[in-house]
Amino acid sequence: MSRKPTLYLAGPAVFHPAAKALFQYLKEICAENGLEGVSPLDGEAKWQHLPQEQQAAAIRQANIDLIRACDAVIACISPFRGPGADAGTAWEMGFAEALGKKVFSWCEETRPYLERVEHQRDDDGRCFCQQHGMIVEDFGLVDNLMLTAGRFPPLPEFDQVIKQAAAELKG
Amino acid sequence: MSRKPTLYLAGPAVFHPAAKALFQYLKEICAENGLEGVSPLDGEAKWQHLPQEQQAAAIRQANIDLIRACDAVIACISPFRGPGADAGTAWEMGFAEALGKKVFSWCEETRPYLERVEHQRDDDGRCFCQQHGMIVEDFGLVDNLMLTAGRFPPLPEFDQVIKQAAAELKG
Repeated sequence: MSRKPTLYLAGPAVFHPAAKALFQYLKEICAENGLEGVSPLDGEAKWQHLPQEQQAAAIRQANIDLIRACDAVIACISPFRGPGADAGTAWEMGFAEALGKKVFSWCEETRPYLERVEHQRDDDGRCFCQQHGMIVEDFGLVDNLMLTAGRFPPLPEFDQVIKQAAAELKG
Repeated sequence: MSRKPTLYLAGPAVFHPAAKALFQYLKEICAENGLEGVSPLDGEAKWQHLPQEQQAAAIRQANIDLIRACDAVIACISPFRGPGADAGTAWEMGFAEALGKKVFSWCEETRPYLERVEHQRDDDGRCFCQQHGMIVEDFGLVDNLMLTAGRFPPLPEFDQVIKQAAAELKG
């Protein structure tokens, strides 16, 4: 193969005050595994000069362009401001899958999603959250089944998922 | 046009104990606007007979099949178990957009996402959430920009978005 497979690094790390350093760290692990990590911030030349009111749409388009250009996506679906994954990350996972790209993920919270939501079980065995009385998925998965019940179930750590991605993409 | 445009109804209503009745109500509003609403539960013949351990992947595939078959998606991105949208809904929105389908949405919580997250503003004007110190998007949007800064910004009510969809799809 003439170039390393490229991986879009999706996840809420983009909101970390030290996001660039975090992504640099992930990129180094990618490189150690023969892969090229691509960060959402790699597209910032397309939007950082724009006035604030134009940035949101431009960031969105820059992220889309990066996903289209990459071979695959690795997403962090650890809980973010609630019991489950960041919605922007979930959006990117769905987008990539529809393009036929492989989508890998990791979730550092290994308890099933059900256990993170206060719930009661009724006589039929269905689980309802205490907050709104909505049904809580009870499949033993770490998050919503659209994110977790596909071809590549989430793994607990980045170090594991990068090895999975390397095996899948360099085969 | 020989048939009504079809709309996949994405959203956490699928977790409501009375989900079928809710979707029936939404389908009636779709019909009043010359559209055919399709509920995630319309695919249940593909999975409800399966043992529990096979259901998650089968539900996921059934939802994917329905999205592929529909002309467009209407998604509820009202906050769900946290300050923002349901991750499964976000996944479906991204999936549909990558297929080139129009994605409409409504959010009954009209305050900007920023106002739903306890935060502090630093001297540079950046906002950080109190919980983890992560940056909070400050674009005046009701949710993550991947969901909200696209071609069709979210509207506050289903009645409004269905009219928007009708105008776009029947034009």
